[in-house]
Amino acid sequence: MLGRPLAFTGTETQILTCWGPAPRFYPAQNRSPDVLGPAPRFYQDPNRSSDVLGAGPSLFTQTQTEVLTFWGPTGPKSSPSRRVAGTKLPDPERGRPQREMQVGKPILYSYFRSSCSWRVRIALALKNIDYETIAVNLTKDGGQQFSEEFQSLNPMKQVPALKIDGITIGQSLAIIEYLEETRPTPRLLPRDPKKRAQVRMVSDLIASGIQPLQNLSVLKQVGQENQLTWAQQAITSGFNALEQILQSSAGRYCVGDEVSMADLCLAPQVANADRFKVDLTPYPTISRINKSLLALEAFHVSHPCRQPDTPPELRA
Amino acid sequence: MLGRPLAFTGTETQILTCWGPAPRFYPAQNRSPDVLGPAPRFYQDPNRSSDVLGAGPSLFTQTQTEVLTFWGPTGPKSSPSRRVAGTKLPDPERGRPQREMQVGKPILYSYFRSSCSWRVRIALALKNIDYETIAVNLTKDGGQQFSEEFQSLNPMKQVPALKIDGITIGQSLAIIEYLEETRPTPRLLPRDPKKRAQVRMVSDLIASGIQPLQNLSVLKQVGQENQLTWAQQAITSGFNALEQILQSSAGRYCVGDEVSMADLCLAPQVANADRFKVDLTPYPTISRINKSLLALEAFHVSHPCRQPDTPPELRA
Repeated sequence: MLGRPLAFTGTETQILTCWGPAPRFYPAQNRSPDVLGPAPRFYQDPNRSSDVLGAGPSLFTQTQTEVLTFWGPTGPKSSPSRRVAGTKLPDPERGRPQREMQVGKPILYSYFRSSCSWRVRIALALKNIDYETIAVNLTKDGGQQFSEEFQSLNPMKQVPALKIDGITIGQSLAIIEYLEETRPTPRLLPRDPKKRAQVRMVSDLIASGIQPLQNLSVLKQVGQENQLTWAQQAITSGFNALEQILQSSAGRYCVGDEVSMADLCLAPQVANADRFKVDLTPYPTISRINKSLLALEAFHVSHPCRQPDTPPELRA
Repeated sequence: MLGRPLAFTGTETQILTCWGPAPRFYPAQNRSPDVLGPAPRFYQDPNRSSDVLGAGPSLFTQTQTEVLTFWGPTGPKSSPSRRVAGTKLPDPERGRPQREMQVGKPILYSYFRSSCSWRVRIALALKNIDYETIAVNLTKDGGQQFSEEFQSLNPMKQVPALKIDGITIGQSLAIIEYLEETRPTPRLLPRDPKKRAQVRMVSDLIASGIQPLQNLSVLKQVGQENQLTWAQQAITSGFNALEQILQSSAGRYCVGDEVSMADLCLAPQVANADRFKVDLTPYPTISRINKSLLALEAFHVSHPCRQPDTPPELRA
């Protein structure tokens, strides 16, 4: 019998039924509500079904191409059911866990020009997640990120920060990994752990090795007369390494032919390079990938020149 | 019938059997070889079993507390078996996938004093992964990381880099995430996606927001007379945010009572703070957690004062 998706409720043997590659019948806006995993921390309280379901999707994040359905209630009395790959699950059940997990529309604290904010905007666009933007102007009033109100929300005094599912997350890559774990379609990390490592390596190279050295607060410290040289040095040094890495990892995009978290870091960093007048001639791979990325809808709509807080003179 | 763990070999219905919370019967050195996931990219070639098995473990990384056993060969003719939670799997089968995945002993390119190298050394120690160290002296000979040999290995010219499973990974957090996905026991990321987000946020705050601003190459740029002030400013600014975040996230460690990736970043950063004579009085939570961490065996053996390349005068 086909039951509604249920998280584990005990330690008894559970029957899972799996189908082969199946994401083709999941449109992007259906964030794999059927991909539920066991939530062992709630074993003690099977009645907390919304928590269980909320915690669930992440646990099988990395298997989103298989449809794992937990037939419930399960146990010694249940029997496995089978379904042909590609058939649809009952619609009324599909959206439920997703809706329970999400409390209201996510709010992104963002600044149009912040490259880290742009990374998250691309992820939200790719995953088709509807959200509200609250603009935090990093230069106006001495920097709105230093306001008491914003500091209490994000002690790091940085954008982006994302209010989602009842929590606030800072740090762009932590946000993207959370989105990936809770809204896995389309995936931003490949299935193969070695490829995932490549994606994270490229992402971290940019997010730890380049961007922090040329962001606003550091440039303030080095003094106006040194800013351009400093930023150029940080970017070219990082791009020298990145170009070499991408020459072996890239297909159409940074790692293979699928857009990944690495690409979400690349395009905004190239935009920064442009802003700081870095000569991109020595970086043909970076330039080529960037061009492909900018042609994608998700990169287009999330671009700094198309944000609610983009000043009129910078609008595209 | 209990078969040997098998990855998926087709798109037919597969029967999986799961038990409830069970990691208690896995000692740390058994890196969950039984936790295998489907490896859909290899569906076309079921004979490449070592690849399939190699790719497998990561796919269920986040469910390591459940014992997921793939009964093989499976399909319409197979029937689910049941086992009582806590019983042991047949030993000869357990180590196999792990051994097949690993080609030789991992090699860590490390510098005793590098805080990023220390992060990875802690992960390797916690996960009980045997490895060789190749020391890369960041100051000798103008910096051994700039040698052609090392650059061809890691274009980023930074330590750590880890040669493992036939690939070389740079960037400490990318390495740790890879270890977590392929050697999930003990876990360094919590099960709950919200807690995972907290762990990654704290990790990224340190890895992107503090460490890069006070590392060797940046300090060289700011000039010797400014180094101490610059490093102190970077660390105190980050610690102000971190202390506030930890006050709500911490239990015994950074996030709750389990050691996580965030702790692997914290202790090395506090060591840097010590080195740069940062007053830690305003950071009671950071100090308390650091003290607890340093008492752990994995943090002790991986400490900068106990590495193969630690100079005699700095040895503990």
